[in-house]
Amino acid sequence: MIYSRKVFFYETDAQGIVHHSNYPRYFEEARGYFLEKNNFPYERVRKELNLEVVLTGLNIEYKKFLEFGDTFNIKLSPKKLNKYFFSFNYDVFNQNKILICKGKTTHCFVKSENKKIISIPEIFANILK
Amino acid sequence: MIYSRKVFFYETDAQGIVHHSNYPRYFEEARGYFLEKNNFPYERVRKELNLEVVLTGLNIEYKKFLEFGDTFNIKLSPKKLNKYFFSFNYDVFNQNKILICKGKTTHCFVKSENKKIISIPEIFANILK
Amino acid sequence: MIYSRKVFFYETDAQGIVHHSNYPRYFEEARGYFLEKNNFPYERVRKELNLEVVLTGLNIEYKKFLEFGDTFNIKLSPKKLNKYFFSFNYDVFNQNKILICKGKTTHCFVKSENKKIISIPEIFANILK
Amino acid sequence: MIYSRKVFFYETDAQGIVHHSNYPRYFEEARGYFLEKNNFPYERVRKELNLEVVLTGLNIEYKKFLEFGDTFNIKLSPKKLNKYFFSFNYDVFNQNKILICKGKTTHCFVKSENKKIISIPEIFANILK
Repeated sequence: MIYSRKVFFYETDAQGIVHHSNYPRYFEEARGYFLEKNNFPYERVRKELNLEVVLTGLNIEYKKFLEFGDTFNIKLSPKKLNKYFFSFNYDVFNQNKILICKGKTTHCFVKSENKKIISIPEIFANILK
Repeated sequence: MIYSRKVFFYETDAQGIVHHSNYPRYFEEARGYFLEKNNFPYERVRKELNLEVVLTGLNIEYKKFLEFGDTFNIKLSPKKLNKYFFSFNYDVFNQNKILICKGKTTHCFVKSENKKIISIPEIFANILK
Repeated sequence: MIYSRKVFFYETDAQGIVHHSNYPRYFEEARGYFLEKNNFPYERVRKELNLEVVLTGLNIEYKKFLEFGDTFNIKLSPKKLNKYFFSFNYDVFNQNKILICKGKTTHCFVKSENKKIISIPEIFANILK
Repeated sequence: MIYSRKVFFYETDAQGIVHHSNYPRYFEEARGYFLEKNNFPYERVRKELNLEVVLTGLNIEYKKFLEFGDTFNIKLSPKKLNKYFFSFNYDVFNQNKILICKGKTTHCFVKSENKKIISIPEIFANILK
């Protein structure tokens, strides 16, 4: 699955490039898009299941940078790690197919009311396949 | 009252200056500092009174800009407008006493559970004086 | 002209709503979209004309709020004010056509190398019509 | 070295906690503080040496979360990796000495004009010791 959009000007910094702290946000956008395409938008996770997805690990290797005017494309690969944890891998390319960075995030589900970890809901485990 | 800190690098943009969308955030920081200095930190508003302060109006005139390496000083002036609404005026200066911008925000209190507007709590009205 | 997208989760705050400081960013996105639709993307302003557009005034009246899961639609209206300054008005609606806020930004052009104000380039004045 | 400050409200998200994308920004603040305490503020790197420090790797393990009202303390440990690369390790604690997260960033110097990597300047290598 590919998520794509143009860089916003406010995401750049005084080095003239996209500030590195925006990539975790791009990854979140890509996950949101993934859930939506699988008919399971994150707002449903929150409102219907009273669950939240928390992020437990973040890893990014920056290879090149994005500038204002660029469009990025994120290739997203989900993976179930075990009963509780799942991950996404991200390959971020610019419009010229140059690899900008590689990322990985790890997540689990928690109950909204007490933030206790629970096993991955079956409906979601099916989406990860 | 003066709130002051250095500009963070991630607040700059590709024009080499602090992005304009950070000033509403600086104002919020200054309000938080004001509440703290008056022994009424905003987390108490939220947890003890079950209230939230919402922002209903924002106005900024930008005169000059801040760059990375600058320190800003915000002169904050609170004002009760009527039974429900209050405002803050902000004068933002850099370390050389150059006026960077002038701002104003308008606010009211709402109940956390239903977001209904309520009159300004007396304890807070006293702080605004 | 209408610019539209879904709210990103990272744009929400602990009140459960989109933080007010994101609206100036939404306005910037809408301006970028406007320039693009007029075949004059902002990166061309910067690279070909060696000009920058700076923001000199910002005004927002917040009526309602956006939550995660919402889609916003921004109606953008540009206006030439005089030889140097131009403005945009913004009406932000959610997916149910509820008015969320009204905004206005004022701008001028400056030379990239010295940040000196210059009169609005004719090519851009034509777009504003 | 310890860098410390209160969480800002705008850094929270609709889960009621500090959004994970703010931690790379906290790390950047801590590095800026480190450079300043060593009489080598980053603005001097940029203006006097015409160099920039770029971030090539980011790694965060999230253990607990920060909420609005919390103060964080970041223990920063710099390390020279080789002729070109250096890293910082971060341990983030809240005001109750609870470990919130552990992070690591990797960096190198590039020339401002062409973004080419150069070996770590001696003045900076001395600070890393």
